[in-house]
Amino acid sequence: MLITLTTDFGLQDPFVGIMKGVIFGINPQVEVIDLTHDIPAQDILAGALTLRHSRAYFPRGTIHVAVVDPGVGSARRPVLIGCDGAFYIGPDNGVLSLAVGNEKPDCITNLSNSAYHLQPTSATFHGRDIFAPVAAHVSLGVPPCALGESSETFLQLTLPKPVRTPEEINGEIIYVDHFGNLFTNIEERDLTGLADGRFEVALGAVCIPGTALNYSAAASADGFVAVINSWGLLEIAVYLGNAQRRTGARIGDQVKLTIATESRRR
Amino acid sequence: MLITLTTDFGLQDPFVGIMKGVIFGINPQVEVIDLTHDIPAQDILAGALTLRHSRAYFPRGTIHVAVVDPGVGSARRPVLIGCDGAFYIGPDNGVLSLAVGNEKPDCITNLSNSAYHLQPTSATFHGRDIFAPVAAHVSLGVPPCALGESSETFLQLTLPKPVRTPEEINGEIIYVDHFGNLFTNIEERDLTGLADGRFEVALGAVCIPGTALNYSAAASADGFVAVINSWGLLEIAVYLGNAQRRTGARIGDQVKLTIATESRRR
Amino acid sequence: MLITLTTDFGLQDPFVGIMKGVIFGINPQVEVIDLTHDIPAQDILAGALTLRHSRAYFPRGTIHVAVVDPGVGSARRPVLIGCDGAFYIGPDNGVLSLAVGNEKPDCITNLSNSAYHLQPTSATFHGRDIFAPVAAHVSLGVPPCALGESSETFLQLTLPKPVRTPEEINGEIIYVDHFGNLFTNIEERDLTGLADGRFEVALGAVCIPGTALNYSAAASADGFVAVINSWGLLEIAVYLGNAQRRTGARIGDQVKLTIATESRRR
Repeated sequence: MLITLTTDFGLQDPFVGIMKGVIFGINPQVEVIDLTHDIPAQDILAGALTLRHSRAYFPRGTIHVAVVDPGVGSARRPVLIGCDGAFYIGPDNGVLSLAVGNEKPDCITNLSNSAYHLQPTSATFHGRDIFAPVAAHVSLGVPPCALGESSETFLQLTLPKPVRTPEEINGEIIYVDHFGNLFTNIEERDLTGLADGRFEVALGAVCIPGTALNYSAAASADGFVAVINSWGLLEIAVYLGNAQRRTGARIGDQVKLTIATESRRR
Repeated sequence: MLITLTTDFGLQDPFVGIMKGVIFGINPQVEVIDLTHDIPAQDILAGALTLRHSRAYFPRGTIHVAVVDPGVGSARRPVLIGCDGAFYIGPDNGVLSLAVGNEKPDCITNLSNSAYHLQPTSATFHGRDIFAPVAAHVSLGVPPCALGESSETFLQLTLPKPVRTPEEINGEIIYVDHFGNLFTNIEERDLTGLADGRFEVALGAVCIPGTALNYSAAASADGFVAVINSWGLLEIAVYLGNAQRRTGARIGDQVKLTIATESRRR
Repeated sequence: MLITLTTDFGLQDPFVGIMKGVIFGINPQVEVIDLTHDIPAQDILAGALTLRHSRAYFPRGTIHVAVVDPGVGSARRPVLIGCDGAFYIGPDNGVLSLAVGNEKPDCITNLSNSAYHLQPTSATFHGRDIFAPVAAHVSLGVPPCALGESSETFLQLTLPKPVRTPEEINGEIIYVDHFGNLFTNIEERDLTGLADGRFEVALGAVCIPGTALNYSAAASADGFVAVINSWGLLEIAVYLGNAQRRTGARIGDQVKLTIATESRRR
């Protein structure tokens, strides 16, 4: 059985290790994989995107724990969502929602049964006291219905959607990775029908002619390149460089894709 | 069997991975958990606090290896301490001592038997050459007495204790976590009898009325909040913010808890 | 079975966790150890040095995956090299070459058989789509010849070699670790015959009399010390300090070892 962990705890403190101690104390046979613990502090959207684009690469039955939880100990519910053969465990603040997407969950459970929590339960570290032990019990086969009452809803984040007109697609930057690559909300399928056409990708003063097959295919002397990346998103990168540092771009900055029409091409 | 690792090695070099290679080469069945490798370089106290507040969350029999070791290769002894069902392995420079606390160890062993060390043994990386192989052998059941001669003492760090008068408790900051939360040496039990009373927590110019149940319960407009945290310590935090950055506070800074007496409350 | 991972992906994104998900989906019994994911972005030499100095500490049969891959998706081949009981998997850009060194590989295989890759295969993340699944299949016993056609050559990096005259050895800094310790390309064996002699180690304005047995044996008041480190290399360090910050030294800076001759010693 696999459990993944996604948090904003960082690795400087022993918080992640403590969660693993709790998990292995309950199920010594489980395998724990860190997705990342460097989600920017309290950035629920970054946590949700991370989970959304990782889940497809884990085997059926994987238990994903995500703890980006500024409201820890307050009224926000701890929740388990079962969906498409996977379990998602964390605070009901949206961090789990983009992984579930538009699919109908098999179950939504309020994690109210304190028999599966550490006692005493702190008000500041539910990762240790609720989410880790619940995940370990689920990995042992405890059914969701034992963990608390079922629920009909969970809090859903909405990702900004790109806006398309005949002449252009207006999207924005939604994620910046370790290399400074700029991920947009423009998906591969948004480019359907443009395969044979020509388009330009613009971010501020940077203008890139179409997409390349890979980073080193950057045509322009300045090294900028647009690719469809491993998450299926249009990405702006710099070959052997850092697009974020070169442009100063931030999450939310607009990216405009201009479609060359017949008449305009002449 | 579980082995935990706590070091100041960072994760940029392969040193931690190399220790794991040595461990798995000796015992392929063991489970290794990182507590943290981002202890500030040579900060023995931070390593000792990390181990002290983590050990309770690991199953009986866990082997904790801590390597914060500026004196590596010098006269300081490599040591194993068995205490309360756990093993602590590292340099005898105090890094293991706060986890043991005031309990009487079951054994203290100088790790002098080089048959359990890598050969040749470097003078600069005992994590690889002594502590990792010894931990792996202990996980296989090698008894402490085989690892070297037994000893009566080990080097103990002393944590500063808060000073209480009828009017106030004077403590200090002893740890700052990834979120910038400021951990003090004032423990939950130091507040016994104050449950119903009123008190204020002061750090420099910041004054917080009593403790809150969780971060989001911060009452004041400035977001500062005092909580009893997951380590059982009085902590100063900022809801959705970073108390360390807001205050510039450092380890050793004084925190004063002023107790409201009957007469002063009128 | 052990798989190690060395990349420049960092830990802020889920890329490493995704690779592990792919690996465990194929072989749930394998053990994965991170060497490091903080190789400086696109620094093939740093990746190659990391692997070179780590491999000896892993059991026979270990599968080492190294992904420092600025040319991902371009013409550079994905390759597997079998050598001395270990497997090395990554891009054929030199990152694997220093681990193999001068030994004759048992096999060199172009990883051209897409039956062992994820489908669809992205052009930007071969760690996920090619190297992780191939490593997992190798850990299950798939023979190299099944993974693609065999090859005669692989791209080899050359490390700068120190130059020795009767009076001096001229080397350079090739690696800087987390503590700011400066690793040179002067190996322990380069000092053969100097055991009884006297020599000085010079880096810019810093001059250190001979090597010490360990960091705390730093003789000079300024704390600088030269040691033969855990990689068997001459290293310049500062006891309880950071030699990189103290000197501003960088990779490629010259280090001169001056040998005291009889006449000069008088």
